[in-house]
Amino acid sequence: MKSEDEFSVWYNDIIEKAELSDKRYPIKGMNVWLPYGWKLMLNIDNIIREEMNRMNFNEVMFPLLITQTEFGKEKKHIKGFDSQVYWVTSAGESKLDIPLLLRPTSETAMYPMFALWVRSHADLPLRIYQIISTYRYETKQTRSFIRVREIHFFEAHTCHESFEDAEKQIEEYFRVIEKLAKKLCLPYIVAKRPDWDKFPGAFYSTGIDVFMPTGKTLQVASVHQYKDNFSNVYNIVFETPTGEHKYVHQTTFGMSERLLGATISAHNDSRGLILPPEIAPIQIVIIPIFAKESQKEAVMKEALSVKKKLVRKFRVHLDDRAEKTPGSKFYDWELKGVPLRIEIGPKECENKTLTLVRRDDCKKTEIKKEFLLKKAGEKLNEIAKELLRRAEKALNENTRTVESLQEIKTLGIYRMGWCGKEECALSIEKATDMKVLGPGLEKDSLKEKKCINCAGKASSVIYLAKSY
Amino acid sequence: MKSEDEFSVWYNDIIEKAELSDKRYPIKGMNVWLPYGWKLMLNIDNIIREEMNRMNFNEVMFPLLITQTEFGKEKKHIKGFDSQVYWVTSAGESKLDIPLLLRPTSETAMYPMFALWVRSHADLPLRIYQIISTYRYETKQTRSFIRVREIHFFEAHTCHESFEDAEKQIEEYFRVIEKLAKKLCLPYIVAKRPDWDKFPGAFYSTGIDVFMPTGKTLQVASVHQYKDNFSNVYNIVFETPTGEHKYVHQTTFGMSERLLGATISAHNDSRGLILPPEIAPIQIVIIPIFAKESQKEAVMKEALSVKKKLVRKFRVHLDDRAEKTPGSKFYDWELKGVPLRIEIGPKECENKTLTLVRRDDCKKTEIKKEFLLKKAGEKLNEIAKELLRRAEKALNENTRTVESLQEIKTLGIYRMGWCGKEECALSIEKATDMKVLGPGLEKDSLKEKKCINCAGKASSVIYLAKSY
Repeated sequence: MKSEDEFSVWYNDIIEKAELSDKRYPIKGMNVWLPYGWKLMLNIDNIIREEMNRMNFNEVMFPLLITQTEFGKEKKHIKGFDSQVYWVTSAGESKLDIPLLLRPTSETAMYPMFALWVRSHADLPLRIYQIISTYRYETKQTRSFIRVREIHFFEAHTCHESFEDAEKQIEEYFRVIEKLAKKLCLPYIVAKRPDWDKFPGAFYSTGIDVFMPTGKTLQVASVHQYKDNFSNVYNIVFETPTGEHKYVHQTTFGMSERLLGATISAHNDSRGLILPPEIAPIQIVIIPIFAKESQKEAVMKEALSVKKKLVRKFRVHLDDRAEKTPGSKFYDWELKGVPLRIEIGPKECENKTLTLVRRDDCKKTEIKKEFLLKKAGEKLNEIAKELLRRAEKALNENTRTVESLQEIKTLGIYRMGWCGKEECALSIEKATDMKVLGPGLEKDSLKEKKCINCAGKASSVIYLAKSY
Repeated sequence: MKSEDEFSVWYNDIIEKAELSDKRYPIKGMNVWLPYGWKLMLNIDNIIREEMNRMNFNEVMFPLLITQTEFGKEKKHIKGFDSQVYWVTSAGESKLDIPLLLRPTSETAMYPMFALWVRSHADLPLRIYQIISTYRYETKQTRSFIRVREIHFFEAHTCHESFEDAEKQIEEYFRVIEKLAKKLCLPYIVAKRPDWDKFPGAFYSTGIDVFMPTGKTLQVASVHQYKDNFSNVYNIVFETPTGEHKYVHQTTFGMSERLLGATISAHNDSRGLILPPEIAPIQIVIIPIFAKESQKEAVMKEALSVKKKLVRKFRVHLDDRAEKTPGSKFYDWELKGVPLRIEIGPKECENKTLTLVRRDDCKKTEIKKEFLLKKAGEKLNEIAKELLRRAEKALNENTRTVESLQEIKTLGIYRMGWCGKEECALSIEKATDMKVLGPGLEKDSLKEKKCINCAGKASSVIYLAKSY
């Protein structure tokens, strides 16, 4: 594990060198997405889009600004966000009659409209999502992708006829998370947040946390069951087939650019990033190599033919910069995490072979050119598998089940019995300077054991960790 | 031509009925993009992305907020936008030290960063774009897609070594506009804006205007040559190969959701929208038709097989709603402008044929099923051609060359000689209650003629129209 300082230095450095984001923008916590970083994020967005569309969600786009009046309606919700809200108070030369705020999240933008859209049971389920930016005035130290004030954000919102239908929707969210995490090669833990830590206004919240190289956890996604908490306030009512009027039950599912922060943190080595093939802006880079000018033509011709073949199935880049040596090109693309490199020199041209170099283990394989498409696909799959294996190893090695708080000496993820009382959880947090992430969703064998704090009967097994 | 009132009623009505946008959101001029409208806009965005990437532009994402300090640097620019800016003055409980504003456009967000990014001639050309929302406090009456306060916006920005390089870039923009307009089936006119009407801070501006059914024009895109106006203020300097330090020359290219407003306005009939195939969220809708329940299985099987075939090449929807009659399905999809309909009934099943119905002329064609892919592609191409032909006809019929202002009796686009003096242009505008769009870029035969106002020698031929 890395110390926080060590990690911070490395993290900021790699983001700058790999040209993902520029934090020199003159507003703290608001950074410029550079082309390579933005492509990475768009690739993640597109995976999310594909999965949400498959689940029959519709993409929409709500306004950024929310009136103070609408925002003020759900009291718990406001209390949770009030200290973080950016206020628009004037426009042009005039003061606004009703102050507007930049969305910190979109419940209060969407739900007045849901009240207009939902009339009868035939309108349900209502399932929409949007990919936008949200704004939160963070007072803690900011860090690219992990804690920022302008957040690239995904949010899905649903309305259902019943609590049970909403629960089924939540199960579906977990399947999306599973698919997405696999493509990012990120293992994760799922924990139902304790009541005092749920989303403001939610009935209950579930967090998706990943393990970071510092031993801390980072929440990258969350799923909320709202029950009819918001629909009561915003009057989202439907008529049942028998003519009754009922409040809808609602869920939300949120993720952010933290997915990218977690991916970068998980997959790297001393040379730089190692990007999961599914999201790499460049999956394969082709490097032509020749010692003499006389070899150039043949090598470049071969490189172009390889590119032409690959481009049908992969995101490929041919690095034909004349002023750079092959060595410095290797350095650049290793830093930027391109998963697979193809080297083409006079020998390869002559033998009708190609040299494939995996980014994860730097191992070379010589293949026959005729098997290029198949072999390249196989290599990319192997790299993805290896990245996931390494990340799972890190998570497993740092997740321990403990029976006494004295066993907790280092950062990491700890599992322990808990009686369910808030005072015990707070006491555990105080003793360890960590946070109760909440009970895991998996069935486990610790049910019969004792609460690690009061030694009373445990009602669940909780995760404990220091979190970002 | 339609009267403004007539058009307004029709326009608002079709946007509501085709479910493109919901303007009941509680902030004036900020509307909710509904799924169908948002898909249309994303399809337009993706055409733009493809063309910009092909020109080797990189997509980036700059922050929404700009500090008052950076915004205040270019005096002409601020003067142009000052009355339209939304101000963020506090966050959480604290007043901000320096007020922030929502970008009305991104020059003042980007150029301080360009000053950091550009060091030497090797960094040039710098070519980036972003697709975002901009915010302008419009005081005029708002209208979906055409005049809104939250604008879905595309903006490209470049830096070049010289004025000539920047001019070449502008030529390339025009080629992108040509390709995009063709896909939207929209003819347009290009006019260099008079000096008093150029973009605030620009050296010169060129507007792309389309003809609207009311006889007015709508500016849907603009291209600006900034020269070194902004680089002087933001200190964007590069070192030449000989070690000199020079200010970069800059261009921008902007478009917005008005592209969608113009497309809707151009392509429609009494039944509803007629969407250009390139951007239609659904290009082909399949309607199964059967009179008896016993025919259902065979028809549905055939419909599914047709869908499966088409889905490889087209955006297809099979309307299998049991509670709706075929007639009411026709009505729905005609309203929503789906370009091609395929009807499948027992007769079609038996004969291995399909009935294709074009949205633009409602003509039916019976085809053999084996030619489906080819024929569907042909029909869509024919529809696109016909939409463009109709729109060109409307533009040409309403563009007239005049030699005296007395000839101008109706709305429309007028061409006339102009001596180049501002006072003459203003006098023309006053006499006609129209706006000088500026000299066209095309070479024309009117050069020798007289200024329509002062009868002095004409230096150019200008377009005149009433514009939105």
